Amino acid sequence: MRVYLDWNATAPLRPEARAAMAEALDVVGNPSSVHAEGRAARALVERAREDLLEALGATQSDLVFTSGATEAAALALAGRGLKGAAVEHDAVAAWVETSLPVDRDGRVTVEDPAGSTLQLANSETGVVQTLPAGLAVSDVTQGIGRLPYAHDWAGVGMAILSAHKFGGPKGAGALILPRGHHPEPRAKGGGQEMGRRAGTENVPAIAGMAAAARAALRDLADGLWERVAQLRDILENALEAASPGTIFVGRGVARLPNTMLALTPGWKGETQVMAMDLAGFAVSSGSACSSGKVRASRTLRAMGFAEGDAACAMRVSLGPAVTEDEVLRLADAWSAALKKHKSRAA
Amino acid sequence: MRVYLDWNATAPLRPEARAAMAEALDVVGNPSSVHAEGRAARALVERAREDLLEALGATQSDLVFTSGATEAAALALAGRGLKGAAVEHDAVAAWVETSLPVDRDGRVTVEDPAGSTLQLANSETGVVQTLPAGLAVSDVTQGIGRLPYAHDWAGVGMAILSAHKFGGPKGAGALILPRGHHPEPRAKGGGQEMGRRAGTENVPAIAGMAAAARAALRDLADGLWERVAQLRDILENALEAASPGTIFVGRGVARLPNTMLALTPGWKGETQVMAMDLAGFAVSSGSACSSGKVRASRTLRAMGFAEGDAACAMRVSLGPAVTEDEVLRLADAWSAALKKHKSRAA
Repeated sequence: MRVYLDWNATAPLRPEARAAMAEALDVVGNPSSVHAEGRAARALVERAREDLLEALGATQSDLVFTSGATEAAALALAGRGLKGAAVEHDAVAAWVETSLPVDRDGRVTVEDPAGSTLQLANSETGVVQTLPAGLAVSDVTQGIGRLPYAHDWAGVGMAILSAHKFGGPKGAGALILPRGHHPEPRAKGGGQEMGRRAGTENVPAIAGMAAAARAALRDLADGLWERVAQLRDILENALEAASPGTIFVGRGVARLPNTMLALTPGWKGETQVMAMDLAGFAVSSGSACSSGKVRASRTLRAMGFAEGDAACAMRVSLGPAVTEDEVLRLADAWSAALKKHKSRAA
Repeated sequence: MRVYLDWNATAPLRPEARAAMAEALDVVGNPSSVHAEGRAARALVERAREDLLEALGATQSDLVFTSGATEAAALALAGRGLKGAAVEHDAVAAWVETSLPVDRDGRVTVEDPAGSTLQLANSETGVVQTLPAGLAVSDVTQGIGRLPYAHDWAGVGMAILSAHKFGGPKGAGALILPRGHHPEPRAKGGGQEMGRRAGTENVPAIAGMAAAARAALRDLADGLWERVAQLRDILENALEAASPGTIFVGRGVARLPNTMLALTPGWKGETQVMAMDLAGFAVSSGSACSSGKVRASRTLRAMGFAEGDAACAMRVSLGPAVTEDEVLRLADAWSAALKKHKSRAA
């Protein structure tokens, strides 16, 4: 039986999202059609928009549906010349000058909020940032459903999000933006999303995303992620007992409740990931989009870790479905693999 | 019982696509993750790519998955300065100089194929174009699954397609392009699609798209669309008998088997669509993306119809699930509405 511990790469689809998608797949109309079938599809999209804005505490804002956070980031950032830090996700870093200073704990200093973008939480380390008031753009992808986030109170201009990180489907994301704001559209040729994003709306994915957001918020309110944080701490303590030299990145600062990044100098992250995979555990050595490539973590490099050490990290990211037994089994498997690694290296 | 006759706006989801999506929704991994769950998701995406290339007769080509035809069009066309005709879909027209001549039957003359784009078939009239060898880009969206199309033989550089027009899900499309070709990416920040389209792949929609393409090809081979063409002709004959002054656009040239555009001077298309909607039939007055707006069809204007006449068109687009009884009932309802319209106008 496999154990999935890579929730920051993508979270399992929530049953609520699956049910909403199944229902939406039966709605045949194109939301741009004026007949009853079209209006039914349109109603699904607009209800999802309202549900999402409510779940995100963004009732004073507007929201553009996209195919994911990557597209939302491009819509928010392209051509604006904002500044960001090197710990941002590649989808954000691609559009900004990555010059903001990062401290050893991964915290970013923003001097000019109106000219900057800053993530809510880092996908690799889980380190949570304090978003300064007046911030132009925030990538809140890893925080939604795991941390309380109310956009109306955050003082952030735009927020980038992705459905599949909080139990919605892959292929859906959104950009929250001020009402009436009209960024230069990147997809043209249709009046959808008030001309800000052309193309027939992905109705089932949008419905699934809204259902997932509602369910995620409920789980958060029910304290499910506090238990996740306890499991994460149990895991860290177990690994630390087996390997006193391992560094738990960001342990001393605010982190996502579900994320552990363990750096074990001299033991390549990719080797750890492969060993854990063989033992039945899905974990990661970095963010999924770059983990296909073998390279040191840009995030860790920005935090001041040496290139050799930055390549020796294993990320474990949990979710409410994970059990204590599973994290303890991972700790055992990891400790055994470390012993093997040491005996080989010796 | 409603009758859906707007298949060019969006086609009902095929059961094969629904089944493939349901299966893919259970695959938790991110295709960029290296563990077993990630590899399973990656395998789904790559199998879908191969299936699609085979179904499209494009085994000598490559394919980039997108969120739909609109995104594929932007990827194919942005910054290239190609020429096109005013009959192109808005998603194409947004990126080209719409200067190519269009004749009264909607056929486009291309003088410089390498510098031009031309649709395979028009969404409003169904008029099918002869694609010249060496054409830079073709929007084949309305043709796939309805006309035989084999990309390897078409001599077209790139082809734009959309899943939901052939029974796949909304939110999925693709760009077929020469192997090794690398257009300037519009979504950046991840190595997906060989760096040509960043962002976590929409695994369920991609799986659904490939399943739909296979099923659509089988239906085409089984002759289902010949029967659709017969129904379309039955419908046209019935409307003509009730209204000898009605013009059936493109009737004398090659058309999609499923599309009828009936122009009845003096009777606004939007009025017809609303009357038919009330009578239980979903039909359209133009392409769905623009049909929210009340305006004369750009396609008809380009074909030389006067603005007043071009606003008086009703499009009916059929599919294999439509029955003879349904089209005859539509003809009756339309004839009755026309009578009412005439008595009011008198």
